[in-house]
Amino acid sequence: MPQALPTFDDVLAAAARLEGVAHKTPVLRSRTLDDRMHAQIYVKGENFQRMGAFKFRGGFNALAKLNQTQRRAGVVAYSSGNHAQAVALSAHILQIPATIFMPHDASPAKLAATQGYGAKVIGYDRYSEDASALATDLSHSQGLTFIPPFDHPDVLSGQGTAALELFKEVGELDALFVCLGGGGLLSGSALAAKALSPDCQIVGVEPEAGNDVQQSFRKGERVKIATPVTIADGAQTPMVGAITFEIIKALVDDIHTVTDSQLVDSMRFYAERMKMLVEPTGCLSLAAALQAADSLHGKKVGLIVSGGNIDMARFSQLMMTYP
Amino acid sequence: MPQALPTFDDVLAAAARLEGVAHKTPVLRSRTLDDRMHAQIYVKGENFQRMGAFKFRGGFNALAKLNQTQRRAGVVAYSSGNHAQAVALSAHILQIPATIFMPHDASPAKLAATQGYGAKVIGYDRYSEDASALATDLSHSQGLTFIPPFDHPDVLSGQGTAALELFKEVGELDALFVCLGGGGLLSGSALAAKALSPDCQIVGVEPEAGNDVQQSFRKGERVKIATPVTIADGAQTPMVGAITFEIIKALVDDIHTVTDSQLVDSMRFYAERMKMLVEPTGCLSLAAALQAADSLHGKKVGLIVSGGNIDMARFSQLMMTYP
Repeated sequence: MPQALPTFDDVLAAAARLEGVAHKTPVLRSRTLDDRMHAQIYVKGENFQRMGAFKFRGGFNALAKLNQTQRRAGVVAYSSGNHAQAVALSAHILQIPATIFMPHDASPAKLAATQGYGAKVIGYDRYSEDASALATDLSHSQGLTFIPPFDHPDVLSGQGTAALELFKEVGELDALFVCLGGGGLLSGSALAAKALSPDCQIVGVEPEAGNDVQQSFRKGERVKIATPVTIADGAQTPMVGAITFEIIKALVDDIHTVTDSQLVDSMRFYAERMKMLVEPTGCLSLAAALQAADSLHGKKVGLIVSGGNIDMARFSQLMMTYP
Repeated sequence: MPQALPTFDDVLAAAARLEGVAHKTPVLRSRTLDDRMHAQIYVKGENFQRMGAFKFRGGFNALAKLNQTQRRAGVVAYSSGNHAQAVALSAHILQIPATIFMPHDASPAKLAATQGYGAKVIGYDRYSEDASALATDLSHSQGLTFIPPFDHPDVLSGQGTAALELFKEVGELDALFVCLGGGGLLSGSALAAKALSPDCQIVGVEPEAGNDVQQSFRKGERVKIATPVTIADGAQTPMVGAITFEIIKALVDDIHTVTDSQLVDSMRFYAERMKMLVEPTGCLSLAAALQAADSLHGKKVGLIVSGGNIDMARFSQLMMTYP
């Protein structure tokens, strides 16, 4: 890697760029959850972020750093959903033309929202086509700046601002559970955690069916898997990023996995008891914390909820499928 | 009526009793909603209140005013759900024995929560039995204090503290839409509104199938209807309260009605766009505001969301039934 890894200073700089643009999302508590876990649980609700997910932070930070020439030419990105909306909304705010590759089976709500922000959407097949290659090719042929979904210093530094806000609001934590796909949120969160709460155990959580980062973490090098089939559509990444993995190796303590059924249990808990909508990927952190409850007694634990973008047809189907 | 009607001073006294006990619930905004309505919409989220509904405010206020003899003897209440939980939780906090009559078809989540707070629950048939008579009889035979669900000065004064918080946070409003069953929330809100925002138009909203208050309001006297069949289970009251109606007649500007289908549209909007769970009754205010959108252009409008207690089986069923 030619460039130096981003640091906590980059997270602070991102926070300054996002000031007044991103929402300072709420930190939510639940007596029921605290009682069940015998712990103090702090839930950072990025489902209440603009466009419904933390991804806005990284997308906006990356676009806000572009110069005038880059802005005029435009940006290209690919995403199963939330990064698409993040780039589309950020481009809309900054008046930058945006082209987004989205899988044909992307959630209708995410597709509609991305188009609603004025981005040009091009479909691709999630299981047979390489979206990164498609986006890179278009960026070369049309002179667009490619904004990758996670493996980029500015993107991951932006994502770290959610954890930054959490620590600023609640102080140090004993453990922090973070949803994990390509590692943008986890690596950014780790930069913030190590600076503001050095003894905090940092746990990344991915779907059991797509445990590429757990495998990579144990092996010490990146492992690529087939695109996993899981309801956590934001964590269907076949391989962790190169930059994000360097930070994860250095700063993260462990990688846990959870099943789709456990994700739906957490979705139901959030909805019924905390009255909030969380998409399956956003439930990774709670589902893992519930699994690890015995080791968390008496501790102060943070959970980052990554997003809440799911349409009600899909949500209801999941509730019916996993009763 | 022998006793004087409660006033804004009673709402202020209730707020003092609830300080540090009830949550100061968030006031939520949505750019999408503002754009669609061409108005500034402020949503007071009582679904985030303790036990998931505004009812905690009135229940706790009434129980907190009991003397030691009354507390030792215990309380009795009846409710399709949220008042049951409100009295049960308040009794739990104040260490008062509580007996609650709940209909056999009450939501399983509400039943479980009420029992979870330690209350004794007795079932009754919503369509054939008079719950108020059952509760009154038991109060006489066992010396319990009967806490009615809405038609009581201390209950409605407590409910008014939600609107009190809303006005304190956002200032005066042009219009306030309030969910309406027996009139506790509406009459309490009206006391707060007339004191803090005298020119605010106050609109109560009930289900079209159960428009007893609209009929009563037009006729100038209370009209009793058969228990209405509507998904808004918190508004299945056959007749408005005597005390609440006096305040409604004096202070409320209009009563609107909405259909079950419009309620589900609002539930879907809250879930998909604002990431929050609202029970059907809690959607009355938004559904009516959407219907009245043309008359609200450019205005500053408050909506009170009454509660969010619905289990996911029922929620999903409604999403499927009203696509």
